[in-house]
Amino acid sequence: MDRLTKFMRETAALAEARLGGFIPNADMRPEILHQAMRYAALGGGKRLRPVITLASFEAGGGREAERSRALDAGCAIELLHSYSLTHDDLPAMDNDVMRRNRLTCHKAFGEAVAILAGDALQTLAFRVMAAASGALAEIAVGELAAAAGSTGMAGGQALDLEGEGKAQAVEEIERIDRWKTGAVFTCCCRVGAILAGSGDDKLAALTAYGNSLGVLYQITDDILDLTADAKTIGKTPGKDKAAGKLTYPAALGLDGAREMAAEKSSLAKTAIGHFGKEALYLRLLADFLLDRIDIA
Amino acid sequence: MDRLTKFMRETAALAEARLGGFIPNADMRPEILHQAMRYAALGGGKRLRPVITLASFEAGGGREAERSRALDAGCAIELLHSYSLTHDDLPAMDNDVMRRNRLTCHKAFGEAVAILAGDALQTLAFRVMAAASGALAEIAVGELAAAAGSTGMAGGQALDLEGEGKAQAVEEIERIDRWKTGAVFTCCCRVGAILAGSGDDKLAALTAYGNSLGVLYQITDDILDLTADAKTIGKTPGKDKAAGKLTYPAALGLDGAREMAAEKSSLAKTAIGHFGKEALYLRLLADFLLDRIDIA
Repeated sequence: MDRLTKFMRETAALAEARLGGFIPNADMRPEILHQAMRYAALGGGKRLRPVITLASFEAGGGREAERSRALDAGCAIELLHSYSLTHDDLPAMDNDVMRRNRLTCHKAFGEAVAILAGDALQTLAFRVMAAASGALAEIAVGELAAAAGSTGMAGGQALDLEGEGKAQAVEEIERIDRWKTGAVFTCCCRVGAILAGSGDDKLAALTAYGNSLGVLYQITDDILDLTADAKTIGKTPGKDKAAGKLTYPAALGLDGAREMAAEKSSLAKTAIGHFGKEALYLRLLADFLLDRIDIA
Repeated sequence: MDRLTKFMRETAALAEARLGGFIPNADMRPEILHQAMRYAALGGGKRLRPVITLASFEAGGGREAERSRALDAGCAIELLHSYSLTHDDLPAMDNDVMRRNRLTCHKAFGEAVAILAGDALQTLAFRVMAAASGALAEIAVGELAAAAGSTGMAGGQALDLEGEGKAQAVEEIERIDRWKTGAVFTCCCRVGAILAGSGDDKLAALTAYGNSLGVLYQITDDILDLTADAKTIGKTPGKDKAAGKLTYPAALGLDGAREMAAEKSSLAKTAIGHFGKEALYLRLLADFLLDRIDIA
């Protein structure tokens, strides 16, 4: 097993265990809400956000004693991600029925519970981030909120819904994705660096890395939606096209989208080019996301 | 004008101005999302949560220089409240069409935008709380999250939906309301006290006050739903009964509910009986909420 795979598997396992502890047990009242939260947030996935957070913490020179804080901060971002998937799948939004090879949350638990589960997962994300960041809570919670809010993830989803069925230039697609997906990737890098005590220069470099990585992720996500089968990506393929969504392959063609992905991967690595071996995992991640064939 | 009315009006005006500054302008992208957030959170109401937060800050002996922090923290709680109303009104939840004498957010902006507006208002609540509480962010954000989450406000809403149409003992109703409404009232008191630098004794007293005040608020809310007309309460009356909701008047009769309200008002005042004149507004609030005839 190569080093990145080992790091990713170990981190995913650690994150899964921490997440399972953060969400109240399924036999605690209200049982159905906790069942739905656990259904939406647990049980797999690559846990890419904790992976990126932890890799950025290491690249930022974080101390071993603070490592579990960085892991928990990454889990907070993962909880935020779970909330967004749960709400994005709702009938009024993307109206999807499959996610991670299972029924979406509202299909399994009903719409009211799915809305509340998403709401409570967002709340939990902030609770975990505040506890993980301790004396740095003002900054770290602010970073998470900026990435998640109306000029971040939620705003990107609004722009995405608004843009459905309209032809758009690639610049507009990139802008939407920078908000919708990229802001959260960048948040992983920034929070990892902040918890590592990185100075302004390192923080700026890791921010630039995160920006490129976020676009890279979205391009390959769009490509997979077009080319992969349902089992591989764990959700309904071809949805983007059916919904008339703005995608990179639609704007640039498949080859053009692949070229742009390669460029973003390269830009990500350049941003941290002056880092030493402490940034190894981040470099490998930029390759991994370019080459991936299944959804993280 | 009596002293409480003056304090409430001044605080509401200050809170309205702060809230208007926290939510991005309606001409900022995504415009429709910011319009919906402003629609849901601005334009009236008594701003009871900032009022209680500021009154608790004063009761806790807060310094004048920190007063605007406490106001902002109260505004954060108000943003959380706005998010919860927006989501509670959704078709899959309470399916209501009127709120504050206007169409509910999803009726005015559509369901997808209303879900996102609620989501982004919750995010903003945490952003504002983190900034307002500064060095105390870990504690204050933790308080807000505990009040809002699956064993607080969101959990109470889940229990409430679950309990519809079932006969319930008053103890169960009180438990649900303690989560659904009470936790946020108590959060106002605790965060106000924490930002004031209150010691454990004062914090415990203000917590007890908040617990009683929250139940008091919900009882009078239930009574008004039964007895007031739509214009007075600004939303559809008789909804609780139509939905088969658990309410205090349904469990205790109207007179029994009024008696329980009087008892909770008295308990709230007793909890802060040893405070001096710095707790004047809190005492007056416990009377005001007992006597109110329109929804705060």
